[in-house]
Amino acid sequence: MGLCEDNLVAWFETQCHASARTVLIPVGDDMAQVSLGDQTTALITTDMLLEGVHFDLSTAEVEQVGYKAVAASLSDCAAMATVPVAAVVSVGLSKDISESNLKALHQGMVRAGDLFHCPLVGGDTTCWGSNGPLVINIAMLSRPALHCAPVKRSTARVGDVICVTGTLGGSLSGRHLTFVPRVHEALTLTRLVPIHAMMDLSDGLSTDLPRLCRASGVGAHIKAHRLPLSEAAQAQPDPVTAALNDGEDFELLFTLAPDHLGQLLKNWPCPAPITPIGEITENSDILISHPNQPAETLKRAGFDHFIQRSLE
Amino acid sequence: MGLCEDNLVAWFETQCHASARTVLIPVGDDMAQVSLGDQTTALITTDMLLEGVHFDLSTAEVEQVGYKAVAASLSDCAAMATVPVAAVVSVGLSKDISESNLKALHQGMVRAGDLFHCPLVGGDTTCWGSNGPLVINIAMLSRPALHCAPVKRSTARVGDVICVTGTLGGSLSGRHLTFVPRVHEALTLTRLVPIHAMMDLSDGLSTDLPRLCRASGVGAHIKAHRLPLSEAAQAQPDPVTAALNDGEDFELLFTLAPDHLGQLLKNWPCPAPITPIGEITENSDILISHPNQPAETLKRAGFDHFIQRSLE
Repeated sequence: MGLCEDNLVAWFETQCHASARTVLIPVGDDMAQVSLGDQTTALITTDMLLEGVHFDLSTAEVEQVGYKAVAASLSDCAAMATVPVAAVVSVGLSKDISESNLKALHQGMVRAGDLFHCPLVGGDTTCWGSNGPLVINIAMLSRPALHCAPVKRSTARVGDVICVTGTLGGSLSGRHLTFVPRVHEALTLTRLVPIHAMMDLSDGLSTDLPRLCRASGVGAHIKAHRLPLSEAAQAQPDPVTAALNDGEDFELLFTLAPDHLGQLLKNWPCPAPITPIGEITENSDILISHPNQPAETLKRAGFDHFIQRSLE
Repeated sequence: MGLCEDNLVAWFETQCHASARTVLIPVGDDMAQVSLGDQTTALITTDMLLEGVHFDLSTAEVEQVGYKAVAASLSDCAAMATVPVAAVVSVGLSKDISESNLKALHQGMVRAGDLFHCPLVGGDTTCWGSNGPLVINIAMLSRPALHCAPVKRSTARVGDVICVTGTLGGSLSGRHLTFVPRVHEALTLTRLVPIHAMMDLSDGLSTDLPRLCRASGVGAHIKAHRLPLSEAAQAQPDPVTAALNDGEDFELLFTLAPDHLGQLLKNWPCPAPITPIGEITENSDILISHPNQPAETLKRAGFDHFIQRSLE
């Protein structure tokens, strides 16, 4: 087994010593769902951001980094159509961090949490012995929406339409620091029609779509010319490749029965568009068609923490 | 305001944009308690461990480090007499970490969680672009015990007896990697008698007792000759100072009405001893008496992440 993120997750899954009664959704989805001993369940996610990997303090304000950290976890709540409840934050700080920077970091976090009434309720502040890199960890708690169970990535069905919210690509030119997590869109979607499977696009469509398909035991066929390209992607030499691989879109990727697509598009009230980009297929191949060319295998080139690209 | 851990926590408390209806126990205790929208509540804590600060891979096996990381969070559950439910883990890894080390780290975490049926249900694996220090973050979810509400540190009462479990001091000589979190003891304590206030001793009695007192708006007077000294503390030149300041004891510090002490000691079924070490007083002074000397102010010399001591 090679040391890549997905293989690791697969190994961790085999090591989970939990009964299905306690852990309703285990390792491998955007959040885990656990029982609290009665009829109530909670969901939890954890995300670590490393200076120089997930953010660069020479190109981002520390307040923006705080915002991004909490917004990324809110995006996990959105990915399963759950309601954010509270967050706790741990930080590893350089010994010479200033009080004003520390407060700006915290204020960015609070700004993101306030968008969805998700307070920071606790934390752990640690400090390198010397000048060390900034490390931020957010753990977030959510609860199932009243109108639907958490939407998993493992429940896509053959024949489903594959859709995304918003536009894709070029996030590193700015949007990765300013995006609004799709919490409202996810809850709206699931109120309008049954959503079969969903996740958020954090590592790029070419990496995340295969994850959804593998979890569901299905394949996919997407159309390159259907991809909703962001302005930043369109400014690049190869906009489609940017939309497939850039990552950090923090949009929703979801599937639904084709019969429900018309109803969804007709009643969709949010400014972020919904775009059908392909369909779920029976075998495990992940294919992409470019206009007037035969379908080819989608090449995975998104972000993997063990096959790493540096931030520009 | 100086940049020290307690001042930071105090500032964070003022910034918490949460209603008392949602957040029952906010920033400042061992865990935060939040409402899940009905009668059910959950508690959450987060702890970050940095290589070179909280552990040293030249003196600790990576499996032990994994164990310690989860055990420290279980100790937070114990600190409030709550029942561990599940944990999520984030790791920041050096790019050259071996698969066997990564699995050993995970196995240590699972070993600790299994002690109290607390599964690892999710995680985030990130990697430094180059050789970076190991960073581990554990976030843990617990639920209130059926027999009592979570025990806070802010509810000590004047006249209470102050007690600790186990023995104190010298943890860095080994126990900090092997301790069994006092989850069972905390639940047993609270079944036997009403416990007014409790926390776990992570940074040393001389740091943690003032925290409990400040949260409760009280003072304390402890007797140096009453402190239960660990064997490791007794091997040091000044065992009492070791017991006061070494930190990482992961024992319970709690207070109760003096009328209940006899009942507790008589019925206490656990191997770890309970020792009364002093009493809660009305003013805010934290005093210590050595035999045949006048009481003096307890000098705070435990672990503060902004006034840092290096690991030996």
